[in-house]
Amino acid sequence: MIQELDVLRNKIDELDKSLLDLLAQRLLLVTQIGELKSRYGLLIHAPDREEVMLSSRRKEAIELGISPDLIEDILRRIIRESYFSENEKGFRNLCPHASRPVVIISNNNNKISKLFNRMFILSGYQVKFLEGNDWYIEKEVLKYASIVLINLSMRLTVEIVKELTYLSDDCILINVFLVKDISLLKIMLDIHDGPVIGLQPMFNADIKNMVKQVIVYHEGRMFTKHSWLLDQIKAWGVQLYHYDSAEHDKNISLSQEFLYFVIFVFGAYLKESNVDLKKILLLSSSMFRFQMIMIGRFFAQDPIDYIDIIVNSKSCLSLAKSYYQQCIKILTVLEQGKKQEFIDYFYHIRHWFSNYAASFFKESRMLLRYIDDNRK
Amino acid sequence: MIQELDVLRNKIDELDKSLLDLLAQRLLLVTQIGELKSRYGLLIHAPDREEVMLSSRRKEAIELGISPDLIEDILRRIIRESYFSENEKGFRNLCPHASRPVVIISNNNNKISKLFNRMFILSGYQVKFLEGNDWYIEKEVLKYASIVLINLSMRLTVEIVKELTYLSDDCILINVFLVKDISLLKIMLDIHDGPVIGLQPMFNADIKNMVKQVIVYHEGRMFTKHSWLLDQIKAWGVQLYHYDSAEHDKNISLSQEFLYFVIFVFGAYLKESNVDLKKILLLSSSMFRFQMIMIGRFFAQDPIDYIDIIVNSKSCLSLAKSYYQQCIKILTVLEQGKKQEFIDYFYHIRHWFSNYAASFFKESRMLLRYIDDNRK
Repeated sequence: MIQELDVLRNKIDELDKSLLDLLAQRLLLVTQIGELKSRYGLLIHAPDREEVMLSSRRKEAIELGISPDLIEDILRRIIRESYFSENEKGFRNLCPHASRPVVIISNNNNKISKLFNRMFILSGYQVKFLEGNDWYIEKEVLKYASIVLINLSMRLTVEIVKELTYLSDDCILINVFLVKDISLLKIMLDIHDGPVIGLQPMFNADIKNMVKQVIVYHEGRMFTKHSWLLDQIKAWGVQLYHYDSAEHDKNISLSQEFLYFVIFVFGAYLKESNVDLKKILLLSSSMFRFQMIMIGRFFAQDPIDYIDIIVNSKSCLSLAKSYYQQCIKILTVLEQGKKQEFIDYFYHIRHWFSNYAASFFKESRMLLRYIDDNRK
Repeated sequence: MIQELDVLRNKIDELDKSLLDLLAQRLLLVTQIGELKSRYGLLIHAPDREEVMLSSRRKEAIELGISPDLIEDILRRIIRESYFSENEKGFRNLCPHASRPVVIISNNNNKISKLFNRMFILSGYQVKFLEGNDWYIEKEVLKYASIVLINLSMRLTVEIVKELTYLSDDCILINVFLVKDISLLKIMLDIHDGPVIGLQPMFNADIKNMVKQVIVYHEGRMFTKHSWLLDQIKAWGVQLYHYDSAEHDKNISLSQEFLYFVIFVFGAYLKESNVDLKKILLLSSSMFRFQMIMIGRFFAQDPIDYIDIIVNSKSCLSLAKSYYQQCIKILTVLEQGKKQEFIDYFYHIRHWFSNYAASFFKESRMLLRYIDDNRK
């Protein structure tokens, strides 16, 4: 019997090796496509092509008696890898005066700045990465820059921007910020006569390329000269959104600052509860493991950025207060054991989620299975 | 240029079709393995074989210049599908008196009961699924049962168990419960002289097979006769853990009841904040999308079970109270803007997470990328 099993397993191993060869060939083709796209300045992300391809393969899978979700999951995973290969081939440079440098002023270890640095280099820009007080002595480079991108704390940004009176009129002054702050844009507009823009990346800093990622831009001063930069960013595969600041603030506060607060509280609570972490993970459902992974992720990172965001944001404080009032409200119902009230409230919340509840249910199932796949 | 692109894309489509063929062949081999395993009663989950296979393919990938994570992710996805195929082939029946039926007493729509029903059938048992008051009239079947498995509310379970004085001495009486309740086990022990066991599945009800899933068992009365059932459950791929009740309770309460409470509060909070759900999702980072998916998932399900668990559990109430006190504590530090205190606390929490913080960071990266892959 062991022998029979071995024969079958060897056959599977052979198939898996063919699979590897196939992947190698596919990635080679993708590299060639990347070169083409780069040469002609085509967008890296082609969602229509993706959907057509996936739906054809799904149909063929059904005909073969294979689960269509299986092939879709595998192809999406390969597509991710493909974007990475295409990325490496670089992007067409869309700057009308390409010889002028891009200057990035940041901390040495800031991952977001490093990512921008990399993307600009891959797009054929000459990038000057300045840290600490370097920028003081680089006045000549700054004068000649096509873009000055600053990614520093609020205080340092204000300090530096106030000195930048000598930028050329067509230099684009960018502030990349995690905390939205419109007052900073105003300072930038006062100092610099050229295009001014605020970029707010809505992604975690440890990604390797920007395909499908969201960046929200806050308009400072828009010239027609500006548009090449937005096109350049789109060429990286980014989904760019322009949003009205006031309306936007509430969403950003909720989805970033406040989320950090909730995760912080949950982590603190777990620590204080002093449960046996090893045991609880062994016993946990995928759902709980999921939460633990996200909390662990948060605390594995550098606190400086997060703490700044949580502590410095007034909207976070007010959101956190109403969250805590929500806690009290539900605790009171819980203490009184009012089951029907809970159920009614449950349906109200589901109603608010409307169609998303059902689609999230589907999406979560895939995610939970993914967690199970990786469970040792 | 379009033509060049089309040629390359057609080649990719051809490769993807070969990939489909390869998958079809592989699943066929897996079916044959499933038949072998079923015939010889081998465990469906072979973690050692899995690890050896994955590590060989990773090495070969590196030699071919392919990302080893790519092949591992793809193979894990295929392995999941394979378990499903193997599952369909059924399991060896490990009951020493296989002709006697398994009786399941449950609500009609309970997914956990249905899953047990399916697993027992796949293992060659005759299963009698009783709902509502059917069990009253099925006394003769119950007398002769090898297993009586009850999955109902606490109240109904007590009511039914009290009548079950006539089970045979080697019939295994099982209570499947989401809320741990040791008092119920005592009632079962008083009524029935044979083996008694409590099973607590630590998984969501919508899974299709039990491979890699965790079930905790609470010992009621263990006979040597018992062990075949545990072997049967293990043959389904389940990770079975026996835990000391008192110690276990705290972990279970935290990882289930309390988690539901936190998600409930978060969902209620979002509803009350009345943000534009569509907009916030468009703008959200993968991390936030993640949380929204899990909250949406919760509210897409039937509230009855959850509400029962939240409202009826005393430990949940006390955990929720200390959570809310944790909220106040952190809000106070936040209001005072004590940044350094935040940072110190952050590092304490990271320390508590010890090595898990780093490994969760890695795991979360995979998950967040998976979310990005599926972003439209």
